[in-house]
Amino acid sequence: MPGVWKGSIGTPDEYNLLTVANAKPREAAINAMDDTPLPISKDRVTAMVVDGETYLRFPLEKEEQIYGFGLNFQSVHQRGKVLHLQVDHYGGRDNGRTHAPVPFYVSSRGYGVFINAARYIKVYAGTAVRLDSENFPEVKDRNTDRSWSARPYSDAVEILVPAAGVEFYVFGGPSPLEAVSRFNLFNGGGCLPPRWGLGFTQRVRTSYTAEDVTEEVRAFADRGFPLDFVGLEPGWQSKAYPCTFEWDTTRFPQPSRFVADLLARGVRVNLWTNPYVAPQSPIYSSILPYSGSHTVWLGAVPDLSIEKARSLFFNHLNKSQVAIGVSGYKFDEVDGYDHYLWPDVATFPSGRSAEQLRQTYGLLVQRYSTELFRNRNQRTFGLIRGSNAGAVSYPYVIYNDYYNHEDFITALINSGFVGVLWTPEARASKSAEEWLRRMQSVVFSPMAMINAWSTGTKPWSYPEVTDQVREMAVLRMRMMPYWYSEFAKYHFQGIPPFRAMNLEAGFSDNPVVQQGSTNLEENPYAEAVRKEVKDQYMAGEYLLVAPMFAGDTSRTVILPTGNWFDFYTGEYVGNGEVITATPGLNRIPVYVKDGGIIPLGPALMHAPKPTEKINLEIRYYGNQPGSYKLYDDDGETFDYENGNYTFREIRASKRPDGSLEASITAPEKGKPNTIASVNFIAMTK
Amino acid sequence: MPGVWKGSIGTPDEYNLLTVANAKPREAAINAMDDTPLPISKDRVTAMVVDGETYLRFPLEKEEQIYGFGLNFQSVHQRGKVLHLQVDHYGGRDNGRTHAPVPFYVSSRGYGVFINAARYIKVYAGTAVRLDSENFPEVKDRNTDRSWSARPYSDAVEILVPAAGVEFYVFGGPSPLEAVSRFNLFNGGGCLPPRWGLGFTQRVRTSYTAEDVTEEVRAFADRGFPLDFVGLEPGWQSKAYPCTFEWDTTRFPQPSRFVADLLARGVRVNLWTNPYVAPQSPIYSSILPYSGSHTVWLGAVPDLSIEKARSLFFNHLNKSQVAIGVSGYKFDEVDGYDHYLWPDVATFPSGRSAEQLRQTYGLLVQRYSTELFRNRNQRTFGLIRGSNAGAVSYPYVIYNDYYNHEDFITALINSGFVGVLWTPEARASKSAEEWLRRMQSVVFSPMAMINAWSTGTKPWSYPEVTDQVREMAVLRMRMMPYWYSEFAKYHFQGIPPFRAMNLEAGFSDNPVVQQGSTNLEENPYAEAVRKEVKDQYMAGEYLLVAPMFAGDTSRTVILPTGNWFDFYTGEYVGNGEVITATPGLNRIPVYVKDGGIIPLGPALMHAPKPTEKINLEIRYYGNQPGSYKLYDDDGETFDYENGNYTFREIRASKRPDGSLEASITAPEKGKPNTIASVNFIAMTK
Repeated sequence: MPGVWKGSIGTPDEYNLLTVANAKPREAAINAMDDTPLPISKDRVTAMVVDGETYLRFPLEKEEQIYGFGLNFQSVHQRGKVLHLQVDHYGGRDNGRTHAPVPFYVSSRGYGVFINAARYIKVYAGTAVRLDSENFPEVKDRNTDRSWSARPYSDAVEILVPAAGVEFYVFGGPSPLEAVSRFNLFNGGGCLPPRWGLGFTQRVRTSYTAEDVTEEVRAFADRGFPLDFVGLEPGWQSKAYPCTFEWDTTRFPQPSRFVADLLARGVRVNLWTNPYVAPQSPIYSSILPYSGSHTVWLGAVPDLSIEKARSLFFNHLNKSQVAIGVSGYKFDEVDGYDHYLWPDVATFPSGRSAEQLRQTYGLLVQRYSTELFRNRNQRTFGLIRGSNAGAVSYPYVIYNDYYNHEDFITALINSGFVGVLWTPEARASKSAEEWLRRMQSVVFSPMAMINAWSTGTKPWSYPEVTDQVREMAVLRMRMMPYWYSEFAKYHFQGIPPFRAMNLEAGFSDNPVVQQGSTNLEENPYAEAVRKEVKDQYMAGEYLLVAPMFAGDTSRTVILPTGNWFDFYTGEYVGNGEVITATPGLNRIPVYVKDGGIIPLGPALMHAPKPTEKINLEIRYYGNQPGSYKLYDDDGETFDYENGNYTFREIRASKRPDGSLEASITAPEKGKPNTIASVNFIAMTK
Repeated sequence: MPGVWKGSIGTPDEYNLLTVANAKPREAAINAMDDTPLPISKDRVTAMVVDGETYLRFPLEKEEQIYGFGLNFQSVHQRGKVLHLQVDHYGGRDNGRTHAPVPFYVSSRGYGVFINAARYIKVYAGTAVRLDSENFPEVKDRNTDRSWSARPYSDAVEILVPAAGVEFYVFGGPSPLEAVSRFNLFNGGGCLPPRWGLGFTQRVRTSYTAEDVTEEVRAFADRGFPLDFVGLEPGWQSKAYPCTFEWDTTRFPQPSRFVADLLARGVRVNLWTNPYVAPQSPIYSSILPYSGSHTVWLGAVPDLSIEKARSLFFNHLNKSQVAIGVSGYKFDEVDGYDHYLWPDVATFPSGRSAEQLRQTYGLLVQRYSTELFRNRNQRTFGLIRGSNAGAVSYPYVIYNDYYNHEDFITALINSGFVGVLWTPEARASKSAEEWLRRMQSVVFSPMAMINAWSTGTKPWSYPEVTDQVREMAVLRMRMMPYWYSEFAKYHFQGIPPFRAMNLEAGFSDNPVVQQGSTNLEENPYAEAVRKEVKDQYMAGEYLLVAPMFAGDTSRTVILPTGNWFDFYTGEYVGNGEVITATPGLNRIPVYVKDGGIIPLGPALMHAPKPTEKINLEIRYYGNQPGSYKLYDDDGETFDYENGNYTFREIRASKRPDGSLEASITAPEKGKPNTIASVNFIAMTK
């Protein structure tokens, strides 16, 4: 395929990320991209197998920056890091242990490298200098030379894969964004959520009964807050941690009626679970022979790499939940904090190692749970705690237990490098201000969620800001045509809907190196501190989002080259410069690229049904001619995979007299069309 | 040997901790200990080799506590930890990465377990529950049972050794202290420093010239501060980081004369170096063929597991430094922060892996540098940044770059579990109070050191406390007969001179479990917080030391059962209870066991020479009859290994009328005797 190169050494594991995820490259889409030359010189890529382990080396130029290596929370630039990629909870440090330690990096020089191994991979991202390096740095005397550095220039990314062989891929650009898109398409293309998945979702307190949930759903309607799906936490099960996967009949006496009743109100049900089987579960005894040697919270761990374990597990979910209308799941604890998950000495009936299962458990859960819904030609959109490469096409959003607003935004930025989705969920806040700031970020993310399993927080729990929060929730609903079209581009073109500024043309970020603590007691090697941009991101084709955090009344925003305009007013704000935003409490700074086109729908309380038609308001920003591909389909089924969708071309520009000239192509005959009418608005006067 | 059991599985590496360290068990000493039954049931110890890795399991009873697993800084109790034992700098978390990740643990039930592998070893210290566990805990429903815990009882320590076999040892007690002593004796017994090693040492600013150093040595004498050896930092070398191992002729034009001059003043010279070879070093080109594939700070890394590399390296040190009278070394950077050390993809001419070299590099440096001095029948006492099991008998004290007073004390406590020595060195302080508090701790540690390489701090740098600091330094010198005898017990009996309260009879510490944060946003599994005793320790046979930290005017001290007395006044302070100490700024709380005997010498400015005789003041505390073994030898050579030493028995008690009855056995004929006269004092009235 154009711009995709495969390398291999030794005997690669057959059990790897792509095979486990069953990732099927979208060949047609990749072939549609321009060809591009191999971006790195072959002879500077080396690979060898030593003592049953594989050592890989890829070149690094002096000014080159690299990004990716999984869902990091505190840094965007990965050059200079030593990482040990392992599926894990996030422990507060970017050390490679995270919910999605995707072994893929993208270079500022416009290419990506992917290691297809379900192993704990060690990465030296430009830290080591070889004796035989062709770029050996000047040796300096620390005694006398103040320019001595503890970290001399390293000309390679070196990688250790603990397996006697591995296959790896290089993806061409020529731009970094194109390299990421190729990686995403190679992994099957991004997921396309159902329309309702892009609406608003509330997760209720774990102890809630059917009545409590119905009551809360009614409250959303009464108070004018949109709601598309509600999440039930462990309390829906008769026993949890470990789980029975059975409804608790005291809290939910009539599950089918309960689910049907909510559906009738336009609200779907999502169910929390972890995969660890309680002795009281009906599948316990039958699944034991297909379980690992160790337990998680005393629950049996199904070896989901075995067909028999999968069918026992997923057939049960299907029978007792999916069949009665449950819309999706939140799969917890598949990331695996060392103290809770099976240890690396655990053994599994498949003969696969604890390490291999840990690196892929989230993939297995995503793949086979998605299949349950696909079998009903019904899309799902759920939550997952652990993932990896290969899962790009699965409709799951990563969440976690960590809760730092700034770091949640950095995670959102990093998610776009490695083909995963992340939600900066809101749970509760120490103040109304923090609550509003978090909600403002949430609506500019893949899943607009309040996760109130422990607190019972509602969108209106902070009365001082209830109106502002409602305004944001309504904005989320109005922007659904934009979000939906952007996810379509994720699916068909591999372009991440939420992504780093570093993937944006006209944006350059060479981290500012500042002197570290000059106190050698604390900083004996006078290590420098690197300041990088990790608090603003691109949302879809045209929007730059710069979240505000509690306590801040203003912030700086770095605008890429080109004219940028205020999302709310259409006013010009700057071009390739650093501006200071003082949006006030009610607004999150959002900027639109020159020529930007943003399609908005009405302020619905639920995503439109397949048959429902909406009136479109199409906003045009700036002065350059702009165009936009508006995506449309039934919003719920997989029929789009059989061509049952349309991209309608929107064009807008300004006539010499400054008046607006705009058009949208007609809907294709026989294809879904959910647009009743179109109204164009030029936002920039 | 009595109380020592060996287990083995698969094909253990021949390159292991004991062979690399050349640890020779002190069989006679072990045979002199009482025999004891195997403390754990054989059939609950399991071992298997899976896919080239070894899985080990040892039983854990419900109330059992375990200690050790290397030089931890923030916790004493290791049960419930997941550790990845790797030689590393200390990164601020007890995760197994530390300067001495000794794969040995001791149980409160009175036995120890040692894994003899030079590998990165994973430890699950009672965290995992197996499906087939014979002690399977009760399964609880988190939805309804408030007694649900995220960490149910695990009945095993499970260990993963990434090698196709391993040998391991179980050491019997019956007490935990005896188990530790057996481990130490099996490793060759503790080191016996030269007397001067227990004196005071100052490390000078790295830029110092010969004149500067001589000037500073003179200043110590002028101000009445004792000084036995002075440490030169990188500036003594012509180039450093990487190193030439050559004197810098501008700062040190006549090294031999400089060293001789200081020796004449009674002060020895210790030299900093790291082992990484600069291109400008005379041994560079010859050592290249025996160096690793990667550099450290651009210096070649000698493969010290090869004889040829060793002879090139150590012969040079011998010729240019040891031969002119240098007394020892401070070997830096053999612990290996990931960003500075060779990566795990490095290869070495010996064919040994980067991992094996990393786990043993500190051992190799200690073993072969000690040999340089042994060849001259001259003891050394130096500093090392990285160590491991096997090094018990080498005269090196571990230090690091971290600098937290409280954590330094916890490290001192943990050092005693795993056969290493640690110095809570003082560098500088934010206040005179902190300086004095640190100095008070330093004199009750294996090496009384000020490490002023960057600050140039002197003992008298904080004028408000200069007299108190001098008083502590003098106390250190006066206690030399006690410290020296305690190190002799470390050597001959394996009893650690500095050790945890947990090894003391009559002390029990089941950590208090406190409720963690009740905010489930921050603590979703309601994890409890464990409070443990990690700020008081035993120093030698009779002393309990409870350091004060800056800002504290009082502290609690937990006294084991038995009567305890104030070290300074002899007054009774308590028995098996928690007391509150308010010692004032001038004193560090120190307590003496009933019947305690503490031999003190005169307030010398340097350790006595082999020929020099001193007057002894023998302090007797409490009311129970007491005895003490006073050790004596020439203090400088290895002749003690040929029996050229004495233990003289001191006895003291109170007659019915309360008067003191005391005696000391006569010196053995033909054996060294440095005691001129003896004066007994009953401290407790």
